[in-house]
Amino acid sequence: MTIEELSAAAKAASRVLATLPRERKDEALVLVAEALERRAAEILRENVEDLSAARAARLPDALIDRLRLDEDRLDEIVRSVRAIVALEDPVGEVVRGWRLANGMEVRKERVPLGVVAVIYEARPNVTVDAAALCLKAGNAAILRGGRAAKHSNRILAEVVQGAVIEAGLPAAAVSHLTTDREELRQLLQQRAHVDLVIPRGGEELKEFLVEHSLIPVIYAAGGNCHVYVDSAADLEKALRIVINAKCQRPGVCNAAETLLVHRDVAAAFLPQVIDELGRRGVELVVDKTTADIAADPSLKRANKTHYETEFLSLKMAIRTVESIDEAIDHVTMYGTGHSEAIVTEDVTAARRFTQAIDAACVYVNASTRFTDGGQFGFGAEIGISTQKLHARGPIALEELTCAKYVIWGAGQVRDG
Amino acid sequence: MTIEELSAAAKAASRVLATLPRERKDEALVLVAEALERRAAEILRENVEDLSAARAARLPDALIDRLRLDEDRLDEIVRSVRAIVALEDPVGEVVRGWRLANGMEVRKERVPLGVVAVIYEARPNVTVDAAALCLKAGNAAILRGGRAAKHSNRILAEVVQGAVIEAGLPAAAVSHLTTDREELRQLLQQRAHVDLVIPRGGEELKEFLVEHSLIPVIYAAGGNCHVYVDSAADLEKALRIVINAKCQRPGVCNAAETLLVHRDVAAAFLPQVIDELGRRGVELVVDKTTADIAADPSLKRANKTHYETEFLSLKMAIRTVESIDEAIDHVTMYGTGHSEAIVTEDVTAARRFTQAIDAACVYVNASTRFTDGGQFGFGAEIGISTQKLHARGPIALEELTCAKYVIWGAGQVRDG
Repeated sequence: MTIEELSAAAKAASRVLATLPRERKDEALVLVAEALERRAAEILRENVEDLSAARAARLPDALIDRLRLDEDRLDEIVRSVRAIVALEDPVGEVVRGWRLANGMEVRKERVPLGVVAVIYEARPNVTVDAAALCLKAGNAAILRGGRAAKHSNRILAEVVQGAVIEAGLPAAAVSHLTTDREELRQLLQQRAHVDLVIPRGGEELKEFLVEHSLIPVIYAAGGNCHVYVDSAADLEKALRIVINAKCQRPGVCNAAETLLVHRDVAAAFLPQVIDELGRRGVELVVDKTTADIAADPSLKRANKTHYETEFLSLKMAIRTVESIDEAIDHVTMYGTGHSEAIVTEDVTAARRFTQAIDAACVYVNASTRFTDGGQFGFGAEIGISTQKLHARGPIALEELTCAKYVIWGAGQVRDG
Repeated sequence: MTIEELSAAAKAASRVLATLPRERKDEALVLVAEALERRAAEILRENVEDLSAARAARLPDALIDRLRLDEDRLDEIVRSVRAIVALEDPVGEVVRGWRLANGMEVRKERVPLGVVAVIYEARPNVTVDAAALCLKAGNAAILRGGRAAKHSNRILAEVVQGAVIEAGLPAAAVSHLTTDREELRQLLQQRAHVDLVIPRGGEELKEFLVEHSLIPVIYAAGGNCHVYVDSAADLEKALRIVINAKCQRPGVCNAAETLLVHRDVAAAFLPQVIDELGRRGVELVVDKTTADIAADPSLKRANKTHYETEFLSLKMAIRTVESIDEAIDHVTMYGTGHSEAIVTEDVTAARRFTQAIDAACVYVNASTRFTDGGQFGFGAEIGISTQKLHARGPIALEELTCAKYVIWGAGQVRDG
């Protein structure tokens, strides 16, 4: 089957999925969950194949960790599918509706996008999450996983597709490819058949898509996230939030990279936060004011490049600012519009920060780590969008739909 | 001022506009409306300059008509601005909001996009409509009008900018350019400063943007629209709707191009609709079945190219279909996803059509001509989007915004 034939089959399947009632889609998803449980041993065996190959190829430990499945992780995947079953059907929701002066009824209704292609790398759970979210939203999914996870993705896609067929839905509702770049390029040309491409991967994948995709793309991009500790912060909350945002899982996009501290609380806060971060193995780079206040000659100096960097590791920049405005300017200059937090007890400062910061998620007195479809109650997500158009924040069910206007009349015509 | 400086100034202005309360924006819009009225004579004089140049250059009559302002048209522009004043502020609307199990409050709030560039051709009203919509939605606007309207657009932009300054808002809230293609190319590179580009023009402009824009684009595209007269149609309504959809203003994107008639009503409906269209000067091309039923040897035969064409003139294709499914297949094959209508008294047929047709606007028993921001009650519009992502249908206030999540907590951190 060529890429064009596969895309056309997905489009045909999407027309069937688009008008299915919720119960038919949920039945299929329950069968997916059951099949994943029934075939767990087989799935884990295939995953071992990928892990062995990855170790033999000396792939980085972080990648091998993302690749690895075990019973707990498989349980979590199944739980995600069941969580998606429990969610309301987004399709058919009347987003707005009103009656015009001439009696026509206008309704803006949520409808599926059609065919969604998801391009991802090593994490096998994306295969199931993406297929389940697309199916629930009435879309056909074309999944293109990374080469490193090919055995795991193949068996997972086979299990999902088997359940879809068992539920009486078209097999092309879910397709899986392990293509080379040339075939990926072909997929990115299928604008007659594919409605949306979602890349979930690094900057290199993103640049490839910017260059080659004729299809609209939503980028699940990186996050250079900040925590700003205001002059009116509760320093106990501040400490807890900074430690969590930096250390709880440093390799992910919603982890914090730079800490901004208001000058008025710097003397009280910096020594303890530097001590606590240091004890957790966080390497620090700090501006001159911070170094002076902390009076620790071992602290390395931060530069512009540090402020621009998404470390994705136990490393953090600290800068002392003179005002909330300076904090906002820093975030505006260096942030990637992902997740930004202020710690303050001052309602005016909180409102000023949430209004001025242009990011997908802005937190008052909470960790940036909450930016996640599961945490937000969306069941699962395909990634976090930092773009403004269509989807911003977790890409979940609602983001996998679009709207159309349906207008009911009684013979009305326009006269002006 | 270079294009980059102008774009950066617009970005800085957009940060001021983003947090303005509604009353400040409405005050500025009222000043815009008043200034347009006060300087009407001056505006019309500049428009005469453009019209003279257009006639001297022997530009097409249709373009000269789009270019022309008169007192009525200027009044209509002012009415649009006042209608936008009367609309609710889209900014700050809580689209969804809920409390998580851990007590955090999550709110998805509507916020401005930032800087919106609108690229358009001859119609001077777009200068004012686009500026007013962008301002109300808290965005800075960069307007790039067509060369043919340069005098009209320059004076209109000057009037708008004067009112904006008088209202105490930054001058760069509205900028106007009459650039050549090279400068337009530069504008399309300013992805650090410009958040969205909306082209409103022909296919050539669209292809230029597909090729050159690094900025997200929403296309205000053409419409190959259909009216399907079902077997259960009220033929009196059908006749009225077909005539209106084709003849009331044939040169616009929501006018109908092809009429599909169910075989069961063809003998009753075709002779009268062919007669009425003919009397209004509509040139017809028809399929063989239609020709046989109409028994009119003067009718020319329709081919695939006719079905693909947006005539934008008093020309129409007619095809007789055997079933609603054949009508849906025709629309799916040839439609551009703009506006599609079914005429029927059968609720099952109406629901089948509205669900199966993948278009921005689907009508039951009403003319496709209603697809318009003003008609829908949106005050004005920048165009009709036929894409699925972000905006579908009229591009008005809501489509000029995006969302961000604002999360209020009490020190919550994530533990899993």
